[in-house]
Amino acid sequence: MTDFSRTRALFHIPDGVVYLDGNSLGALPLAAKARVAAMIEAEWGEQLIRGWNNAGWMTQPRRVGDRVARLIGAPPGTVVMGDTLSIKVYQALAAAIALNPGRRVVLSDSGNFPTDLYMAQSIVATLGRGLELKVCDPEAVQDAIDESVAVLMLTEVDYRTGRLHDMTRLTRTAHAAGALTVWDLAHSAGAFQVDVSAADADFAVGCTYKYLNGGPGAPAFIYVAPGHAEVARPVLSGWMGHAAPFAFDLDYRAGAGIERMRVGTPPVIALAALEAALDVWDGISLHDVRAASIALSELFIREVERRCPDLVLASPRDPAARGSQVSFRHKDGYAIMRALIARGVIGDFRAPDMLRFGFTPLYLGDADLRRGLDIIADVVINRRWDRPEYRTRELVT
Amino acid sequence: MTDFSRTRALFHIPDGVVYLDGNSLGALPLAAKARVAAMIEAEWGEQLIRGWNNAGWMTQPRRVGDRVARLIGAPPGTVVMGDTLSIKVYQALAAAIALNPGRRVVLSDSGNFPTDLYMAQSIVATLGRGLELKVCDPEAVQDAIDESVAVLMLTEVDYRTGRLHDMTRLTRTAHAAGALTVWDLAHSAGAFQVDVSAADADFAVGCTYKYLNGGPGAPAFIYVAPGHAEVARPVLSGWMGHAAPFAFDLDYRAGAGIERMRVGTPPVIALAALEAALDVWDGISLHDVRAASIALSELFIREVERRCPDLVLASPRDPAARGSQVSFRHKDGYAIMRALIARGVIGDFRAPDMLRFGFTPLYLGDADLRRGLDIIADVVINRRWDRPEYRTRELVT
Repeated sequence: MTDFSRTRALFHIPDGVVYLDGNSLGALPLAAKARVAAMIEAEWGEQLIRGWNNAGWMTQPRRVGDRVARLIGAPPGTVVMGDTLSIKVYQALAAAIALNPGRRVVLSDSGNFPTDLYMAQSIVATLGRGLELKVCDPEAVQDAIDESVAVLMLTEVDYRTGRLHDMTRLTRTAHAAGALTVWDLAHSAGAFQVDVSAADADFAVGCTYKYLNGGPGAPAFIYVAPGHAEVARPVLSGWMGHAAPFAFDLDYRAGAGIERMRVGTPPVIALAALEAALDVWDGISLHDVRAASIALSELFIREVERRCPDLVLASPRDPAARGSQVSFRHKDGYAIMRALIARGVIGDFRAPDMLRFGFTPLYLGDADLRRGLDIIADVVINRRWDRPEYRTRELVT
Repeated sequence: MTDFSRTRALFHIPDGVVYLDGNSLGALPLAAKARVAAMIEAEWGEQLIRGWNNAGWMTQPRRVGDRVARLIGAPPGTVVMGDTLSIKVYQALAAAIALNPGRRVVLSDSGNFPTDLYMAQSIVATLGRGLELKVCDPEAVQDAIDESVAVLMLTEVDYRTGRLHDMTRLTRTAHAAGALTVWDLAHSAGAFQVDVSAADADFAVGCTYKYLNGGPGAPAFIYVAPGHAEVARPVLSGWMGHAAPFAFDLDYRAGAGIERMRVGTPPVIALAALEAALDVWDGISLHDVRAASIALSELFIREVERRCPDLVLASPRDPAARGSQVSFRHKDGYAIMRALIARGVIGDFRAPDMLRFGFTPLYLGDADLRRGLDIIADVVINRRWDRPEYRTRELVT
């Protein structure tokens, strides 16, 4: 059984803060600061250009990728780190479309994170040849999969409501219809057990700054199923994905397997922070994380509904049907969230009326959450949010 | 007059090292370590998700972009940071092609860095419609520009020889023929005066880990000329380039001007290191940097040719015709470079026979270089490189 009191001691949580936004940006693993400082001083400072060989910078995207692989049920050698999630979505979707050339439809849903849809819009516009992006309701995906679909591209967990797609079932349906799948695991990796192998996903992508705690803007990951890895076309064909980057050939030749999904020079400093964050996951059972997350979210829903009847649950009530976040609606949600944050209870807000709260057992315990619930009840019931300064919009809301 | 003894004190150079590879990876600015540590502790650790507003993370790519803008002769508001140079090449070239829809040729040269050519190959293959990439010799570019050319895409300084293109003249020729230009400033920014405005460049891109000293894998930059910024199509249409990212619209609308060239979540930790590195440039005259670089490289060529006649100059002899690096050829160049590095003189090697040496007046002084020259002379003349361990190839060569 995972000892979460041990993992909580590995994170920094500011005094007075109840952090319920690890679904957006994970908390700071204490080791990350020292790891980055050591990387900067001992590797960049002392090794200089020799760091590419001596400090393992060149192989770092694969080495870190293997550590993420374990957390998403992928075999070693099938995941590589780099770029942002938007870029990895682009690579995965473009490669998937190319592997299914007779089809014209990219199917997604309105619960997908917008950047995935924007990238898909760009790809279909760029490729032309009659391709189109179809966006259906999340509940309608299963029925919308037909033999016109080239690629089913979904985010497993809805960023607003936490609604969880059934990756295994939808992938099976897609494959039966001759479609490939691209799964965005942004809100899945580190939140619960993910098994891309068992689900038979074709491509998967994700970020590492949410439940994996890699820091703001931490590098993304991409998984390519072994059956596709040697034939997938890397549409963003950067030199690090070349079969022999240091041959400096004038013509591109795709690297072996997942190597070809590398693009440019890897973000070495950011990967050092991420490596320290992944150390926390050593020996952690995602089954235990999921169980603890459900216990927290069930407590949260029960107490919010009991004490704050004005807040309306926007997430699935069945814990098996959601990820590791819970959202409530309120017409003054924005002001409520500003007031909560001023009191140290940090969640976030999504227009027009959604308050989001994330549950991260690695550093959020039962006592923390109960403290947060008392503040939420006080702020909501006593209308402490009803002040002009809480209605002023900030840049990022 | 810039006081380079003052700037040298702002960098860490390891004991016993003469660093002649700042053209590949810049040395560590001492302030970068503290800046990154403060960012991690005070911003990520304490602000958590609030950092996007309170610590200015959201506007950082533009704020840092403005500081790079000054160094490349671009007006404020025309440069944004993010991704890798490969990705920025892809964006710039794809946008430039779209702005010149009647033309079919992307013209580049064999002195371009391979990743630029690989990205161009991918773009022409993806877009189809008869587009082709033509790669000529660097000396033949001027004459190869004709009315078939949609985009002239060049790296200003040849990564192997240091040969410098005339950006102003080639851009003028391109424009006269109705072509647009994409300039890769990887080996230019921070090496000498660059003036994208005076040269009338349409797009420019570059990395920040060479002469700008941003650290391994530091974020790239992209410049779009004001006349194109509002009409360029951002083919990698990520949410950070959306007109209103936090509206979470289902449809992409390009942001205003250079904002649209943002893609995914910015690399906040890496940008903190880069900001510290750019502080060093405050008050520095690139005219002085260029003059000092030429003095160093002229001394270097003169002394190497005098003392090591087996080394054959591969760079232009005219300092006005090269960037801030000098290359020499030798059939045993690889072993020679390994032996030099073992003695603390760090340059690098490019197949098949090229030894590269970069000159970075911010942290390389005359006395350092003379010390390096003595070691080079000893290693070459006394064949100290002729040992089996110096012939063993490393991963990155």
